[in-house]
Amino acid sequence: MFMFEKPLGMRDTLPALYKTKRAVRDKIMKEISGWGYDFIETPTLEYYETVGVQSAILDQQLFKLLDQQGKTLVLRPDMTAPIARVAASRLAGNSPLRLSYQANVFRAQQREGGRPAEFEQIGVELIGDESISADAEAISLMISALKASGLSNFRVAIGHIGFADALFKEILGNQERADKLRRFLYEKNYVGYREHVKSLALSSIDKQRLLDFLALRGDAGKMLQGLSICESNDCRQAIDELQKLWSMLEEFGVSEYVKLDLNIVSHMSYYTGILFEVYTDKVGFPLGNGGRYNRLMEKFDRPAAATGFGLQLGQLLEALDVLEKEEPKHCVLFSQERMKEAIEYAGALKKDGKMTVLQNLSGVQDVDSFTKQFEEVAYFIGSKRGASNE
Amino acid sequence: MFMFEKPLGMRDTLPALYKTKRAVRDKIMKEISGWGYDFIETPTLEYYETVGVQSAILDQQLFKLLDQQGKTLVLRPDMTAPIARVAASRLAGNSPLRLSYQANVFRAQQREGGRPAEFEQIGVELIGDESISADAEAISLMISALKASGLSNFRVAIGHIGFADALFKEILGNQERADKLRRFLYEKNYVGYREHVKSLALSSIDKQRLLDFLALRGDAGKMLQGLSICESNDCRQAIDELQKLWSMLEEFGVSEYVKLDLNIVSHMSYYTGILFEVYTDKVGFPLGNGGRYNRLMEKFDRPAAATGFGLQLGQLLEALDVLEKEEPKHCVLFSQERMKEAIEYAGALKKDGKMTVLQNLSGVQDVDSFTKQFEEVAYFIGSKRGASNE
Repeated sequence: MFMFEKPLGMRDTLPALYKTKRAVRDKIMKEISGWGYDFIETPTLEYYETVGVQSAILDQQLFKLLDQQGKTLVLRPDMTAPIARVAASRLAGNSPLRLSYQANVFRAQQREGGRPAEFEQIGVELIGDESISADAEAISLMISALKASGLSNFRVAIGHIGFADALFKEILGNQERADKLRRFLYEKNYVGYREHVKSLALSSIDKQRLLDFLALRGDAGKMLQGLSICESNDCRQAIDELQKLWSMLEEFGVSEYVKLDLNIVSHMSYYTGILFEVYTDKVGFPLGNGGRYNRLMEKFDRPAAATGFGLQLGQLLEALDVLEKEEPKHCVLFSQERMKEAIEYAGALKKDGKMTVLQNLSGVQDVDSFTKQFEEVAYFIGSKRGASNE
Repeated sequence: MFMFEKPLGMRDTLPALYKTKRAVRDKIMKEISGWGYDFIETPTLEYYETVGVQSAILDQQLFKLLDQQGKTLVLRPDMTAPIARVAASRLAGNSPLRLSYQANVFRAQQREGGRPAEFEQIGVELIGDESISADAEAISLMISALKASGLSNFRVAIGHIGFADALFKEILGNQERADKLRRFLYEKNYVGYREHVKSLALSSIDKQRLLDFLALRGDAGKMLQGLSICESNDCRQAIDELQKLWSMLEEFGVSEYVKLDLNIVSHMSYYTGILFEVYTDKVGFPLGNGGRYNRLMEKFDRPAAATGFGLQLGQLLEALDVLEKEEPKHCVLFSQERMKEAIEYAGALKKDGKMTVLQNLSGVQDVDSFTKQFEEVAYFIGSKRGASNE
């Protein structure tokens, strides 16, 4: 193994990207704080039996290890389960609770050159509010945060887990057959979905309903079409919730960023209602996603409704496709006998807010190539005639 | 296992501490950037064979796991080795290189209630400069960063790994006996040290020299005493370097924060020269430490001198012993029919920089206890007579 190798999916963030990441992160965090959310931090390692199991990330994607007591730990694969753990001990009284986070999460990758195995998420959880207002708030805040980051060309696709569930249950009867179809949706493999539907032993009317379902993506008007292919109470409730949500998003003034997509199916098994994903043209994967998860808190002994979202900072940066300008740096290069002068001069530059490297000439091997990186170099070398700038 | 349990040494950071941590972190990072250091980020997981082995943290303190290819990974136990890995690929030309980091590091703990197993370090590495100026810069920057954080009552104890090494070698002859004494110093067990010295089969003169060595802590004047108990070239060189460092620290104007301690022995086996630790009265462990490590870079195929420091943010926060004031939050509480008004009102508050929670009344179970947490609550409920503040 070469000494500079890194594990699969692990990356370094070098100065220019680091600065950009920090600037974008700060803008998003400021927006989230502005909406009254409190940031918290949770440990990188959690017990497999608690957070690991509840995270709803595939077991093969978990980084697992044993602690010295022989218990299995995981590197947190998401932040929703850890926040739920913390919220369970803080919910009393001040519900609904608004918590937020900025943290790296971990998912083991199978092959080289794929998605990162460690990536930063910034998100919120709104816990203890079952009203559709809470969903509208989560979506509106996510849109505001993305706008604050500088992104403009994005779309939030909104669906409802209950609609597909009810439709599939009504037509297919059993869970196994429903899961198979759901898998095509999750992979956004619509060709596969169509072929699979054609192969099913169903009436041509039911087949057509399953195919029509694929058309339920687009503007809000499509919701009415949705109603016509599924008449069960669960379907009606999903549509009703989406209609309420829609009018709220209009009041929030964000409906231009939103489209409907009843085909959204998350790999997160904990979603129970409205759910959503953000896309841009530039990046193949969602920049973020979220939704309602009303059954997770009960796993932590505190049943409560909840909703939230998480943004993938790395993917957002790709979509923004800008690097922070390198701030110009100054250099004060000195020889030993003039160190005191040099320190004073550098101190004055720093006081002016200038990033200033103070460098003893004796520590530099190649002065030309070293000084090239600076906007300005002041020399305090040899004779005592003050700074000579170049 | 209870659902809210966390692994040994793992902690949550709740809102008030989170804000404080962030404010202090930002001040330190700003100071470090001001001195021309570039922040970078490295992965949480590294190969055991590369960074794990070079980190010089005891094997039993490493969190280890296997990746899917069967290679052993570690959660980074420090940041110096990862930065060395990155620097090795970036050193060409622009040496000396000034890199900095802010990251959580991981060290497995043996028992409940002990030190944290995950903690945040902020630090710098100055790579490719073997002059004592570089050591003086690292120490001065660390002091500036601590002052910027708001800390005043701290002391930096400075020593030199070469002095004790040379003295012990001269008197004790073999490494094993030297290591035994060194261990007492590392544990700051001076009683044990004295007793052990008395038990050694040495001349009374040599015993006295080993005991006198313990007195080499205090102000710079003690350095001269140091000279009298050890006459070897290595000892003289260590003293010479410390004297140079001392006069430079005076030029940096930070000598009031510094004392000499030739008894400092780091558990970090990679130190090769000047090394230092920061203390305050309030906290039992060092707030940070650093030193020269001229042999680490060669492990990454790029021999280069280097020095740096790392501050423990958690311990610094304990020493500062202040919590950021909770920013007052506003609340806009509305009933459905007045949502639009409420959104507008909340938007105006947010534009004024006020942290504002927008809450649908139907999502609140206990209005009294919910509203108690806010500085001000505006009600948009029922009749349309504008905001009523309370």
